[in-house]
Amino acid sequence: MSQRIKIKALLQTEPAGQEVNVKGWVRTFRNNQFIALNDGSTNSNIQIVVDFQNTDEALLKRITTGAALSVTGTLVASLGKGQAVDIKATTIEVLGDSDPEKYPLQPKKHSLEFLREIAHLRFRTNTFGAIFRVRNSLSFAVHTFFQERGFVYLHTPVITASDAEGAGEAFKVTNLDLNNPPRTESGEIDFKQDFFGRATNLTVSGQLEGELGAMALSDIYTFGPTFRAENSNTTRHLAEFWMIEPEMAFYDLADNMDLAEALLKYVISYALEHNREDIEFLTQRLTEEDKSKPQQERQEMTLLEKLQFCLDNDFERLTYTQAIDILKDSTPNKKKKFQYLIEGWGADLQSEHERYLVEKHFKKPVILTDYPKEIKSFYMRQNDDGKTVAAMDILFPGIGEIVGGSQREERLERLEQRMDEMGIPKDELWWYLDTRRFGGCPHAGFGLGFERLVLFVTGMGNIRDVIPFPRFPKNAEF
Amino acid sequence: MSQRIKIKALLQTEPAGQEVNVKGWVRTFRNNQFIALNDGSTNSNIQIVVDFQNTDEALLKRITTGAALSVTGTLVASLGKGQAVDIKATTIEVLGDSDPEKYPLQPKKHSLEFLREIAHLRFRTNTFGAIFRVRNSLSFAVHTFFQERGFVYLHTPVITASDAEGAGEAFKVTNLDLNNPPRTESGEIDFKQDFFGRATNLTVSGQLEGELGAMALSDIYTFGPTFRAENSNTTRHLAEFWMIEPEMAFYDLADNMDLAEALLKYVISYALEHNREDIEFLTQRLTEEDKSKPQQERQEMTLLEKLQFCLDNDFERLTYTQAIDILKDSTPNKKKKFQYLIEGWGADLQSEHERYLVEKHFKKPVILTDYPKEIKSFYMRQNDDGKTVAAMDILFPGIGEIVGGSQREERLERLEQRMDEMGIPKDELWWYLDTRRFGGCPHAGFGLGFERLVLFVTGMGNIRDVIPFPRFPKNAEF
Repeated sequence: MSQRIKIKALLQTEPAGQEVNVKGWVRTFRNNQFIALNDGSTNSNIQIVVDFQNTDEALLKRITTGAALSVTGTLVASLGKGQAVDIKATTIEVLGDSDPEKYPLQPKKHSLEFLREIAHLRFRTNTFGAIFRVRNSLSFAVHTFFQERGFVYLHTPVITASDAEGAGEAFKVTNLDLNNPPRTESGEIDFKQDFFGRATNLTVSGQLEGELGAMALSDIYTFGPTFRAENSNTTRHLAEFWMIEPEMAFYDLADNMDLAEALLKYVISYALEHNREDIEFLTQRLTEEDKSKPQQERQEMTLLEKLQFCLDNDFERLTYTQAIDILKDSTPNKKKKFQYLIEGWGADLQSEHERYLVEKHFKKPVILTDYPKEIKSFYMRQNDDGKTVAAMDILFPGIGEIVGGSQREERLERLEQRMDEMGIPKDELWWYLDTRRFGGCPHAGFGLGFERLVLFVTGMGNIRDVIPFPRFPKNAEF
Repeated sequence: MSQRIKIKALLQTEPAGQEVNVKGWVRTFRNNQFIALNDGSTNSNIQIVVDFQNTDEALLKRITTGAALSVTGTLVASLGKGQAVDIKATTIEVLGDSDPEKYPLQPKKHSLEFLREIAHLRFRTNTFGAIFRVRNSLSFAVHTFFQERGFVYLHTPVITASDAEGAGEAFKVTNLDLNNPPRTESGEIDFKQDFFGRATNLTVSGQLEGELGAMALSDIYTFGPTFRAENSNTTRHLAEFWMIEPEMAFYDLADNMDLAEALLKYVISYALEHNREDIEFLTQRLTEEDKSKPQQERQEMTLLEKLQFCLDNDFERLTYTQAIDILKDSTPNKKKKFQYLIEGWGADLQSEHERYLVEKHFKKPVILTDYPKEIKSFYMRQNDDGKTVAAMDILFPGIGEIVGGSQREERLERLEQRMDEMGIPKDELWWYLDTRRFGGCPHAGFGLGFERLVLFVTGMGNIRDVIPFPRFPKNAEF
């Protein structure tokens, strides 16, 4: 018997009546004659022509949507339009049945909400097949980008004892009996008896540990899961998400921005090259979805156009202060259309402001720099003005903040002073401070929220649809 | 001023008196004249020749081990042996001082135990620089291997509500107030009020979710952190470690073994090609270490030879039953040298037995198959003999089990029966069983413990030395 060939390869094969074997799942079976079979290697199905007059009726009945088949036959030029080849089946074997009365995925359009509830099966739809193939390509593109530049991939810890950055939004990790935890004489929970001998939680960022690597290996990046116990039921937040966090010794803020912009362009370009068919499908999906919306809410560009536009244009770089000036004078601010009106310098930017800058004012990705130190983290390098820090956020159309980074404060005294001001425990972070004590140097880094990137490239509207099994308040199914 | 060039690139540059700039950390400073500077891009240092007669004494004093420097100078052919080029310094700038009285990393040999306590600085040693560059290459090689074969990288969840596989060894994840958790009327902890609305823990494996992906995308792999709250203080166990778990639809046990063997050979070969210098250094390190051991404990092969041997030889494949026969008749069993004597079929193999097979009997990697079902997991495919399952473990010299896998039980009835027998809650795994209800098919997969792979390729003896910040009982520092 012929060895199995994947459908992606098969569709690129010259048909010459040769025998082939495919394995996959039935998408549709029309007129007892045409099976559309998919194996996940591509968005396209292979059409299998069944000689229904000479095929056992009991077998025909088992060819139902979702059933797993092994089909052997001859590869011929397709008579139908839309694809080059068909298989004329000689042998069909049902590897796994799928009861059409019970199978949740009927051959019709299901809502994304419904598919989220059967996330274990949604991989089998065109939309989610495309999304997870694009996600895969973006992951690999991230690695390739950094490897080509000599960065070291560093696995920073997921379980951590430091909550310096967590601000109370870190999940606790424990091995204690929750029902009856050991207590100290003074009645407090005795974490000394816990697995790690202290209270631990899930990391909210690998940055601080990443900096330790950069202070020896020059350029490192992390790519791992991070966690936020934030009760945000939005389309942009997850309790468990993947982050990419490069840290570079000897980089300043401008180098940092250059690298982040190059990374984003590289990975988008990679996906366009390797997943053209998937992105074309998702573009069509979005265009269809748009048609049901009122005219003023529709996208000006298709997904493909938006991605290409991102590649072709420099990101707009401006300071926070310049952005505030633009926002203060903007029509929605003057007409009081913003929920949070911009009254002056120092305000934290809300999503509505970011979207105005990106989608209305500049109409392209924007990098904002030099934010007020009060609204940024303790480790960001203080500028000479005494008011701002060398931060940079990259804002994307439809997404908002996709990258947040900064030059890091390498001067021990300035760092300690800021930690004191912000109530960050210095003793807990002795190892972080050590890198400023011994051979510290100017350095910078940023974090890229991977799911937000996937959202942007797939054109999906809800972050829960771009990670296989989303974690959010009241949901940890699968 | 010249743009910074990394030392790895610099060492391959033809010296022609051109101006160059390097940045890095001082490893040693001999005779107030020769700085060995390292930037982590390679194991080698660049030698910088200082014109000490014309250099400010205050500056010379600040060139201490660990200090961060920016050096500009001319690239010249080296007068010393061992490397091709030196830099004749024209400008030296100290970017970050390192007080030699306080810097923990003195220019002498430190014990691995001591370096573990300063894991934030150990990246700056030759040994750990090499280890983490090799680890990086192995990571990327894993991705490249699977991407070349059309696998989809799937991020399976870290936080999970199912503890089917955990066997009580999963860490709990919660957002409840541990000191005073909400309770139900009957006095039990009310996990409905927890973040996810139910009790959750850290995953011990992404396999079950991985299978869901494979049942649509054909071939997937995971590469992510997994956790075990096992109180094992050994050189082979971590509480947090990274696993690679491919799952392949339409694979049987033989396909599974072929893939695992090909993967291991590919990544070892990749590291040998891309990290030759690092592996040569680690080989030398191991050979040195060996010299302090009694003759009979020394390795027969050097690290490089061992890696090459792995590439050049087929892994030995035999069944558990055949292995038991060999072990029963073995000298250490007859002479009662094994701690656990092999009396007959059914015994679980201990590390001493695995090592005997691999290191003494076959003297090469071994794949054991078809284990008794009683000592394996519920999801492994039952063989027709009614006694064994289609499992396979790959055993490596010095490491023991590095891969564990199986063909998965695709037959719903057999799977449910086994879950009942083993007390696995079926209702919790409704989604897993669904893939057997709807278009199930023969499939297989395995798990590769990434740190064990890094141990093998680096020749290190303790798993805590091959992950940046190890997590083990009573330790979650950094």
